[in-house]
Amino acid sequence: MTDTALFTVNNIWVLVAASLVFIMHLGFSTLEAGLVRSKNVVNILFKNVMILSIGLVSYYLIGFSLMYPNQSWYGVIGFSQVGLSLPVGASIDYAAGHYTYWTDFIFQAMFAATCCTIVSGAVAERMKLNSFLIISIFFISIGYPLTGMWKWGGGWLDQLGFYDFAGSTLVHSVGGWGALAVVLLLGPRIGKYGRDGINPIPGHNIPLAAVGVLLLWFGWFGFNGGSVLSADPDAVSLVFVNTALAGAAGAIGCYFCSFYLFKSHDLSMVLNGILGGLVGITAGADVMTPFLAVLIGMISGVLIPFSVVFFDRLKIDDPVGAISVHLVCGIWGTLAVGIVGVKAGWEQLALQGIGVVIVGLFTFLFIYLITFLVKKTIGIRVTEEHELEGMDLVEHGSAPSIEGMTSTMEVRVQT
Amino acid sequence: MTDTALFTVNNIWVLVAASLVFIMHLGFSTLEAGLVRSKNVVNILFKNVMILSIGLVSYYLIGFSLMYPNQSWYGVIGFSQVGLSLPVGASIDYAAGHYTYWTDFIFQAMFAATCCTIVSGAVAERMKLNSFLIISIFFISIGYPLTGMWKWGGGWLDQLGFYDFAGSTLVHSVGGWGALAVVLLLGPRIGKYGRDGINPIPGHNIPLAAVGVLLLWFGWFGFNGGSVLSADPDAVSLVFVNTALAGAAGAIGCYFCSFYLFKSHDLSMVLNGILGGLVGITAGADVMTPFLAVLIGMISGVLIPFSVVFFDRLKIDDPVGAISVHLVCGIWGTLAVGIVGVKAGWEQLALQGIGVVIVGLFTFLFIYLITFLVKKTIGIRVTEEHELEGMDLVEHGSAPSIEGMTSTMEVRVQT
Amino acid sequence: MTDTALFTVNNIWVLVAASLVFIMHLGFSTLEAGLVRSKNVVNILFKNVMILSIGLVSYYLIGFSLMYPNQSWYGVIGFSQVGLSLPVGASIDYAAGHYTYWTDFIFQAMFAATCCTIVSGAVAERMKLNSFLIISIFFISIGYPLTGMWKWGGGWLDQLGFYDFAGSTLVHSVGGWGALAVVLLLGPRIGKYGRDGINPIPGHNIPLAAVGVLLLWFGWFGFNGGSVLSADPDAVSLVFVNTALAGAAGAIGCYFCSFYLFKSHDLSMVLNGILGGLVGITAGADVMTPFLAVLIGMISGVLIPFSVVFFDRLKIDDPVGAISVHLVCGIWGTLAVGIVGVKAGWEQLALQGIGVVIVGLFTFLFIYLITFLVKKTIGIRVTEEHELEGMDLVEHGSAPSIEGMTSTMEVRVQT
Repeated sequence: MTDTALFTVNNIWVLVAASLVFIMHLGFSTLEAGLVRSKNVVNILFKNVMILSIGLVSYYLIGFSLMYPNQSWYGVIGFSQVGLSLPVGASIDYAAGHYTYWTDFIFQAMFAATCCTIVSGAVAERMKLNSFLIISIFFISIGYPLTGMWKWGGGWLDQLGFYDFAGSTLVHSVGGWGALAVVLLLGPRIGKYGRDGINPIPGHNIPLAAVGVLLLWFGWFGFNGGSVLSADPDAVSLVFVNTALAGAAGAIGCYFCSFYLFKSHDLSMVLNGILGGLVGITAGADVMTPFLAVLIGMISGVLIPFSVVFFDRLKIDDPVGAISVHLVCGIWGTLAVGIVGVKAGWEQLALQGIGVVIVGLFTFLFIYLITFLVKKTIGIRVTEEHELEGMDLVEHGSAPSIEGMTSTMEVRVQT
Repeated sequence: MTDTALFTVNNIWVLVAASLVFIMHLGFSTLEAGLVRSKNVVNILFKNVMILSIGLVSYYLIGFSLMYPNQSWYGVIGFSQVGLSLPVGASIDYAAGHYTYWTDFIFQAMFAATCCTIVSGAVAERMKLNSFLIISIFFISIGYPLTGMWKWGGGWLDQLGFYDFAGSTLVHSVGGWGALAVVLLLGPRIGKYGRDGINPIPGHNIPLAAVGVLLLWFGWFGFNGGSVLSADPDAVSLVFVNTALAGAAGAIGCYFCSFYLFKSHDLSMVLNGILGGLVGITAGADVMTPFLAVLIGMISGVLIPFSVVFFDRLKIDDPVGAISVHLVCGIWGTLAVGIVGVKAGWEQLALQGIGVVIVGLFTFLFIYLITFLVKKTIGIRVTEEHELEGMDLVEHGSAPSIEGMTSTMEVRVQT
Repeated sequence: MTDTALFTVNNIWVLVAASLVFIMHLGFSTLEAGLVRSKNVVNILFKNVMILSIGLVSYYLIGFSLMYPNQSWYGVIGFSQVGLSLPVGASIDYAAGHYTYWTDFIFQAMFAATCCTIVSGAVAERMKLNSFLIISIFFISIGYPLTGMWKWGGGWLDQLGFYDFAGSTLVHSVGGWGALAVVLLLGPRIGKYGRDGINPIPGHNIPLAAVGVLLLWFGWFGFNGGSVLSADPDAVSLVFVNTALAGAAGAIGCYFCSFYLFKSHDLSMVLNGILGGLVGITAGADVMTPFLAVLIGMISGVLIPFSVVFFDRLKIDDPVGAISVHLVCGIWGTLAVGIVGVKAGWEQLALQGIGVVIVGLFTFLFIYLITFLVKKTIGIRVTEEHELEGMDLVEHGSAPSIEGMTSTMEVRVQT
């Protein structure tokens, strides 16, 4: 009898958390839409909406079975089935009284599309829509679940002792490595790196970007809090505290660092500082004290401006700063588990390093290969003319939104 | 003792679900605001905010008592009282250990205003504000609760065996029928249907529309998940999975269909595809396997572009596609319960058809009559001059937002 | 055994409520961003994001310990420690089976930053960023926790019998008094009060403001619902009903009142009516019947237009109406607990009055003093030139977003 109530509350919390992770896709969408130019805003929203949709369906079809197979070949690769198997009404008491089979799937499915959403920001304003969607399908269906299985599916990294609570490595740095691979093959936007140095290309709608970051922070309470995989009061509440404090400290660290470097109060930098702090705490949100969460978040925030400048100097054009946020802070957060907190120690640090390197290497090479093949066949970059005109007009038949042209069209229609 | 914990978790989930349904009103508001022209954006937001507010209060005053009367006349009409009766602190253990009296009310109240919000999108950019609000009061207080009682209040449709889990018919097609009735009496916007064919009138802010659809999807986890009326782990988690997959499949179905028909990647079409998928799964979200949810959602998505073209050919002007989404996919989803899934069968299909037809007929005639009376008395359409100028200036004294004019006003103020 | 499940559901609800309160910061951000001019939008967002971040960290460092000390000097002032003390994994069974130590902190921390967010709206478009942040740190770390302790920390007001369920006084009127103090020292925006009377300065993006208010309403279900401090079915569900109805009635009351006064359908007024209703019910959301919630909300809504006109006549310039919403309706809601509902009575009314006056007096003087000191040292107001140019350009190096200039910059970059 008691078990029923506890099972019910555990399960419903993971479902609520899944819906909070869902809202992160809205956060990514508005963040990226705000940070691109108005001529590409429909394009980036189209990408994000389709990735979410394709991601859910392809993770249903094969991703989930690759990531959580019943058995696998030396903990490296395995597969259960196509789709989900249980009939309606047969899933009770699945994971040791914590959640049902369907809950397990939906919580993981909400995570899966995230890795491609990270890529979509980095490749914004110059990549062919269909090529992007094709690469995304491979990433969500094969790349992400495979490395995910190594740890969360009980694979070799898990057996080794690698620790990644909610995915600083398995979700964020994986997305970051994928983004880096595609961006290297894609090249920077026209006009970004000129003879006279780096030309900043400001986003067209900063409020939309701010909305995105606060929605992401909101969703992160589900992302990290749900990763407890039960409603365990101590664990979930500590994770909430650490998630809140790390994001806040990321903003503060980034505020001082970017003011020191650039002498201006740059909102988009501070927004990325929040995200950096959140990515940083994700690997160890359950094994850190609040003080350590502040520390990890603040260092993440300090890393962001340096990282943004670093990638710009290398002429790696990342319109939204996704690589700095998700790759750099993802690596930092994963290593931090070996440096401070309950699990800290040289051995753990070495394990964390091994996980970072191997997962990174595999993901980078896998996405590089897929992207290379797509580039050689249907191409990955829009024409120069289309890039200058903007993708909204060319690929979506839409005039730039929130601007004069739309109104002009309307006036024409009325007369 | 155990019952207390289970009762508590059931009740709190339905409350959380109620707040998710609440956020759907924000979703509708931003979707509709994004899809109208900038000169009418304050007007549509004003409508949506007032409908939500009037809806909650009028459902409190009489709607709830009409929909869930203690006894009724042959299961067709009944009424309990004006307002809510219980004193503070007297509602425990109301519905078989599932939720309190107040929870019952608030979850249902959040649903009630939805039907009018569906109408507000379809009649956008040309309808008088006060006439719209008057019709809305009748719809929320009488029309919606009456047909709702036939099924959810234990009325004749329920006794017959009609099935509508969360309201493909009782909420969505009811809203759609209401919208159709008002639009037929209202006529299309000036300039939409010219001698040279159909002139598309694009929305002024597609990011806002995308925000709206993702918020609606988010809220739908409460709309469908809360309709289990408890936190039952199996039922709620299956409903979550089906809701996610049907929305995703709606996007994919619509993506291919609209690309095939129009040769362009139309974001607003895909957004309506998501909503179509969600409306489609709503009637049977608890009796379908995930595979069937994908199937139902995908067919909903395919229906959307055809339906939009169909209503445009009939010169039924629906600026946001509300009739295609809520009426067409609402009917499809209700019938689908008789075609596939646990309940499928010829007899069930016939029952579903009866429900669709009778509920539709009643709602259409009721709203048509109310609207006709309002049209003959105070009128329902703004003047041609006001329509061209935009309703924001005329009815709200506001210059178009997010545009040049506002800034002009500000500059004028400063000098 | 049973206790575990009940404890778990109580705790998880307070955490979910904390994340709903978190989203109120997004609501405030978009509301305020929408109601200022486009030249100051990055500035107001920067303020709100930094307040939230600084607020969480400084409440972690000392605020929480000031507000909930183990012992205090005559219930007036006390302090426990710097930071939070418990090690990872040691917090179970903290508050009589309701929630953990971490949960207690995070729910209260989400509240703390609110008081400064109220100020940020009232001082928008003319205040120096750093001066504002300095004052905020004092407000969040000392002012707010001190008066909060008097009631919620078991201090002298609590022992006296003052009642404030979720903070009409302790949060909202405190924020309003702070706003009033700063605004009096800051003065009105240039051009607001001219020789020819009051010049309205309309916000640049009303949809953003509407999004903000609906998000605030959404978050208020956690603000009030979580203040039950458990998932008690009766209490939480009644609070939900009252919160929904009071907000709705606020809109309706304000709609009629502002139409009567101004003969126009003013959306920003109605939006503030909703907020007024919500602030009004906050003090007594658990001791009112739904009918009384409608009454309290409606009176709040009626108060808003009068209050806005009143402060404008006094040349107290409050760009977003924060003082009318939070101070005026906060006082009204607190007094209402002594006038109607379960607790009503002359003695209670007197106690409510004492709380309103003493908390208000302390907060006003404290913030006035801090602001005065900051004004005399580094100054609180930007230069006239900078105010006219807009703060985004001067303080943030950003051109106005959502407008022509941004595009111009982009075009320049590309050529």
